[in-house]
Amino acid sequence: MSIWPVLADEEMAPSARAVLDDIRAARKTDFINNFWRVLANDPALLKRTWESLSEVMGPGALDPRVKEMLYVAVSIANSCEYCIRSHTAAARARGMSEAELGELLAIVGMASQTNRLATALQVPVDEVFAAPLAGRPEPADD
Amino acid sequence: MSIWPVLADEEMAPSARAVLDDIRAARKTDFINNFWRVLANDPALLKRTWESLSEVMGPGALDPRVKEMLYVAVSIANSCEYCIRSHTAAARARGMSEAELGELLAIVGMASQTNRLATALQVPVDEVFAAPLAGRPEPADD
Amino acid sequence: MSIWPVLADEEMAPSARAVLDDIRAARKTDFINNFWRVLANDPALLKRTWESLSEVMGPGALDPRVKEMLYVAVSIANSCEYCIRSHTAAARARGMSEAELGELLAIVGMASQTNRLATALQVPVDEVFAAPLAGRPEPADD
Amino acid sequence: MSIWPVLADEEMAPSARAVLDDIRAARKTDFINNFWRVLANDPALLKRTWESLSEVMGPGALDPRVKEMLYVAVSIANSCEYCIRSHTAAARARGMSEAELGELLAIVGMASQTNRLATALQVPVDEVFAAPLAGRPEPADD
Amino acid sequence: MSIWPVLADEEMAPSARAVLDDIRAARKTDFINNFWRVLANDPALLKRTWESLSEVMGPGALDPRVKEMLYVAVSIANSCEYCIRSHTAAARARGMSEAELGELLAIVGMASQTNRLATALQVPVDEVFAAPLAGRPEPADD
Amino acid sequence: MSIWPVLADEEMAPSARAVLDDIRAARKTDFINNFWRVLANDPALLKRTWESLSEVMGPGALDPRVKEMLYVAVSIANSCEYCIRSHTAAARARGMSEAELGELLAIVGMASQTNRLATALQVPVDEVFAAPLAGRPEPADD
Repeated sequence: MSIWPVLADEEMAPSARAVLDDIRAARKTDFINNFWRVLANDPALLKRTWESLSEVMGPGALDPRVKEMLYVAVSIANSCEYCIRSHTAAARARGMSEAELGELLAIVGMASQTNRLATALQVPVDEVFAAPLAGRPEPADD
Repeated sequence: MSIWPVLADEEMAPSARAVLDDIRAARKTDFINNFWRVLANDPALLKRTWESLSEVMGPGALDPRVKEMLYVAVSIANSCEYCIRSHTAAARARGMSEAELGELLAIVGMASQTNRLATALQVPVDEVFAAPLAGRPEPADD
Repeated sequence: MSIWPVLADEEMAPSARAVLDDIRAARKTDFINNFWRVLANDPALLKRTWESLSEVMGPGALDPRVKEMLYVAVSIANSCEYCIRSHTAAARARGMSEAELGELLAIVGMASQTNRLATALQVPVDEVFAAPLAGRPEPADD
Repeated sequence: MSIWPVLADEEMAPSARAVLDDIRAARKTDFINNFWRVLANDPALLKRTWESLSEVMGPGALDPRVKEMLYVAVSIANSCEYCIRSHTAAARARGMSEAELGELLAIVGMASQTNRLATALQVPVDEVFAAPLAGRPEPADD
Repeated sequence: MSIWPVLADEEMAPSARAVLDDIRAARKTDFINNFWRVLANDPALLKRTWESLSEVMGPGALDPRVKEMLYVAVSIANSCEYCIRSHTAAARARGMSEAELGELLAIVGMASQTNRLATALQVPVDEVFAAPLAGRPEPADD
Repeated sequence: MSIWPVLADEEMAPSARAVLDDIRAARKTDFINNFWRVLANDPALLKRTWESLSEVMGPGALDPRVKEMLYVAVSIANSCEYCIRSHTAAARARGMSEAELGELLAIVGMASQTNRLATALQVPVDEVFAAPLAGRPEPADD
């Protein structure tokens, strides 16, 4: 049982239902997963979360498969079962192979190990890593 | 000051120096960053860590730039300054653009947000996400 | 199945039962939740935990509803399902509205996002934030 | 040295400068802290982060002091030095007393302790905490 | 349902089965727990993980009971239910008493509390703790 | 600069100074590290923290060296620099060798890796690990 109920369409406020319509249109499917149906209890939170997510995960420099793989990696590090499952499904749907998933897992495991070693030993940052970015990023403007 | 000293080549055990030689050969550079020089205080730990890392980050299904970006994402989630700096440098060296870094950051931020929301609300996993993988991965053998 | 059994009153040591009596008196209810019944396997740990908790969550400068909301926020960040559920219930019992819970969730999500961005980018602390507290807190004595 | 440079106004893209103008107007001060000056390297990320933040931290059911205190609590749990410092300053500016900060700290410490104990012992959730919310929240519509 | 299936011996690649044979020989039992049966979907990841684990947890300066207790403590801090359960079982099998488990839990709880307080207050490291190790560790060579 | 000032003895409330006297007596040294001098700004928090800590770290079933090593392991997992440094120093003072520290680090790294793998793959808990403790712990009474 979730903290807020999983709302059916007809149980939510009109402003929440409008967000679900956006999600359906963007994803080209009628299916809405539970995350959005629970967030729908707070229409403003639902709307803000969906708008940010669709902007972040929309077309850009990285391909959608890589974006979902990054999402999975963070979700593992944050121990979120729901997010691990939903974004692994999304990554597979965008073409991630099982071999790629295996490499992702190996990297998450390896990084978790060296992250702790570097922290445990308080390794000083090498000068070369702390140097300013040579030639700051050209202002990416819309 | 790190917990163990940053060892110069001549201060370490021969077995540790041998690992540094491997790192130099693999990376085609004489430069060895502090992480390895601190680990060198425990030659067995140094050797095991380097061997696993070079296997995990070596050639595979994912390209090296994506591998380093996954490493950065996990290092951020684990709050490891040293690793954030060293692997951001490595990702840039492997071709990550500043626009790609911007997308990586946006994904790490977004995932951290929805990870907490899903956990906070205890959203039940949709049946479709918990379903068994249709057609298990063909045994990937060497 | 928990790591230690959920003890009924008659299964625990007298010193553990005495703590449960304190909890019942303080909370003005006979109901004791599982957390305490599992801790009762180690009476000293039970006693110390209850005494600290009742001191920390007792009357003070902050009102009880805000205290429970802070408890919920930390429990989300630490991914503790049991604590999220028990302290959300406690916060509601102390008057937290669903609109307030929605704002709490939005803040936890937002902070998790900007926490990661500030860490990822290694933003230098502004001088104004690192400045000493003007006029140290007057010694709050009992 | 941050991962991206701390940009002066004249170094950023016009779209980033426009966001800084919004921040100045909202906060009624000319001072812009480093977090925003570093994010300004990616104008879209800057804009989205500011818009979400100002919506989340704006007027609502909770008072601004409590909102900032929740932000501080999460930032501590996530080990973000920058955010701890900037939001502790913000909470003080909104009226948090040092006694209230002391209670916040005590709660963060206590919750971190019981979070780990409940997780360590795998305490089963009591039926009463998993029960559905009696009377779901009335649709809060705008 | 796990992300990858729990493979029976006859469903895995020969190279994975060979690792399971090693585990059985090392542990002197036919029983293989699910962790290894799921990892078996990626034979290289399985092999590397088992080899590192058996090296790390094998004979050394610390006794096996203490090694497993350290493993449990980290698993609690990382909120991994599977690992908490499997390594608590392993620690008990290696002689950890329930009184020792109680002390372990008390330490994990206490450390989680003071870790957050030190971070929250940004306590400056005392000079004496940052001092170099007097007499660096003699090179431990094989 | 810490969030609260590092107080000299003569700057603190008498009730805080009394706690420092207890610490000095228990540790048989005049030196008081910064953690306590910062906590001294809130005498009640100082007193409760010290009393719990001295009880938890005092004589018991585990030897003091092992207790400090568990403290270090948790502090690494929680990324607390101050605590890593102060408790590594304490563990060394109680007899931890550098070889033991190396094993501790290897275990923390290994556990961090398998914790993430088990979480990532959502490995189902084996029945044998979820079984009730055969013969509950005899009530340990004072």
